[in-house]
Amino acid sequence: MIVAGQRRRTIWPAAEADAVYIIDQRGLPHRWLELRLTDIAEVHAAIRSMAVRGAPLIGATAAYGLALQCRHQATDAALQAAKAFLDNARPTAVNLAWATQRMLDALAPIALDERCAAAWAEAGAIADEDVAVNESIGEHGLALLRRLAAAKPADAPLQVLTHCNAGWLATVDWGTALAPVYKAQAAGLAVHVWVDETRPRNQGASLTAWELGQQGVPFTLIADNAGGHLMQRGQVDVVLVGADRVAANGDVCNKIGTYLKALAAHDNGVPFYVAMPLSSFDATLGDGRAEIPIEERAARELTHIAGLDDKGEMTEVQLAPAGCNALNPAFDVTPARLVGGLITERGIVAAQAAALQALVGAA
Amino acid sequence: MIVAGQRRRTIWPAAEADAVYIIDQRGLPHRWLELRLTDIAEVHAAIRSMAVRGAPLIGATAAYGLALQCRHQATDAALQAAKAFLDNARPTAVNLAWATQRMLDALAPIALDERCAAAWAEAGAIADEDVAVNESIGEHGLALLRRLAAAKPADAPLQVLTHCNAGWLATVDWGTALAPVYKAQAAGLAVHVWVDETRPRNQGASLTAWELGQQGVPFTLIADNAGGHLMQRGQVDVVLVGADRVAANGDVCNKIGTYLKALAAHDNGVPFYVAMPLSSFDATLGDGRAEIPIEERAARELTHIAGLDDKGEMTEVQLAPAGCNALNPAFDVTPARLVGGLITERGIVAAQAAALQALVGAA
Repeated sequence: MIVAGQRRRTIWPAAEADAVYIIDQRGLPHRWLELRLTDIAEVHAAIRSMAVRGAPLIGATAAYGLALQCRHQATDAALQAAKAFLDNARPTAVNLAWATQRMLDALAPIALDERCAAAWAEAGAIADEDVAVNESIGEHGLALLRRLAAAKPADAPLQVLTHCNAGWLATVDWGTALAPVYKAQAAGLAVHVWVDETRPRNQGASLTAWELGQQGVPFTLIADNAGGHLMQRGQVDVVLVGADRVAANGDVCNKIGTYLKALAAHDNGVPFYVAMPLSSFDATLGDGRAEIPIEERAARELTHIAGLDDKGEMTEVQLAPAGCNALNPAFDVTPARLVGGLITERGIVAAQAAALQALVGAA
Repeated sequence: MIVAGQRRRTIWPAAEADAVYIIDQRGLPHRWLELRLTDIAEVHAAIRSMAVRGAPLIGATAAYGLALQCRHQATDAALQAAKAFLDNARPTAVNLAWATQRMLDALAPIALDERCAAAWAEAGAIADEDVAVNESIGEHGLALLRRLAAAKPADAPLQVLTHCNAGWLATVDWGTALAPVYKAQAAGLAVHVWVDETRPRNQGASLTAWELGQQGVPFTLIADNAGGHLMQRGQVDVVLVGADRVAANGDVCNKIGTYLKALAAHDNGVPFYVAMPLSSFDATLGDGRAEIPIEERAARELTHIAGLDDKGEMTEVQLAPAGCNALNPAFDVTPARLVGGLITERGIVAAQAAALQALVGAA
């Protein structure tokens, strides 16, 4: 990832191994603010408040949370309690529980007085692997984009539509759905991205638009309502989204509204692909639609919104009538039948139980 | 319609027949402001800026515009020029050109010095007929809602999802898609409305939510992204939307995002109905998707938004990164195959060329 021309990551440990730094994504695109997190309470709050968000990134952040916990108390009981506390910060993305479980598994055989160093190393490994996994997703996705581009006139950029932010801001680096876009850019393949605004939290308008702008990838912001119309008009070549959890049957849970884009892609013959590190795969759930828990967030995310006023101050304004009822489910589940394929670090796989099982089993 | 407990209309002539009053809908739900329009320039500006909006209401407003024009110059040439100017204010809703053509047809045989009075009467007739037409749509829609409610447990309210504002604020009174809801309320049939926010102009959050609140109809605001998820979960019994133009083949042009809701309704077996006065039918267009012009509005509607700040002042805030590209198509076209039926003032008709032709021909 590149911010103001400099390579960086979204999360990095303090040199003294006593804290972890994140970008407070709630200020973007208007304000760059780094947060220093020093204990699990701060880590929990950062995840819950969406200062950090994105399935892979909240996994890495929680892993560092357990490393910080080891500085205070590293017993099995303390770590298990810390894991339960962190897992509870957000319910839908499985990467959170995946990362904390991996930490516990790694620390269980380690002597108490060596757990701090081991935890710090393991969290670092999770973060490093996330970067490598996403880069690999980028390579596999690039092959797909090349194939699609080959079917177009040479001077027309490949038109990608994405929903929410599944870019580097959602991961440690590279992103999931945007990794193939960055690989395409690096390979000189012309790409243009339609960025869904992604109400109610506007991750598209505030994060994806900003991230693509920093990276120099051409993009155009659209309302969530507009994607179907663009697909009808032949202005979308492929839809690329991320995932918060993929069930054993290939059902994909992702940001609310993803399902509507999958329907429109299906109706218009537009390839619909989900970029997914295998840490987002939940083999324990047989049926995504029936079993994946859907987080319901505050009504205020819908009735109010913050932005930059004409004095350059962050200001929150009320959009709906005072006291208006609102319901705010944060995710939906796209049935596997609408998914053209899952782009994983081990290649592109069909969103089907047998194919997924074979891929995961091949580890 | 009821505002602050009082019956009113959205447009009313001045007693002196020298102006027409409208509600400036840009201030809602936060500010009630009545605008006095005295010439076609002001009428054109009110339509173009969306101080008035909604296909039926812009038709009635343009009709009053031609009545105002007669006070200045009522020759055929002047009226034709005024019609062309008004029709040009917004391109998609056919009611605008329908109403202005009806005014010209009515005035053509009238002597020049009697045109003012005749124009005023004709504009009044268009407004009155809109009220009657919408009430009739409400009755036909009520029969549909009763049928759907009969299939539910007796204590469960009928769950209606609507997009944009096709309520009384979009018409002279009653509304189109919401007329059946108001008729149901009057008939004691329990109804709850899911209100799509309707980005980017938020007509759902600002107008439909306010209107239903004034009327005392239970409702819940949702993001445009959430409707598919609610349908998957069986929480929507019927989708009711309005139309800006319906083509001879039954294709429905309506607010951007309607198509996505139609796809979700189809995928989940939820009835999808379009409430449409026959003034929104355009028999001259054989293929809605290919031929209906889609208005493209300013990018700023997407990148900025206005609301009430914590001091109670209307404030505009910037949501997207500075200089962000944005595309803002205002309508989309739902293919007839996804439309369960068209609720017109003459009954519910299939969205098919032959059925529509039979209905219109039966006048």
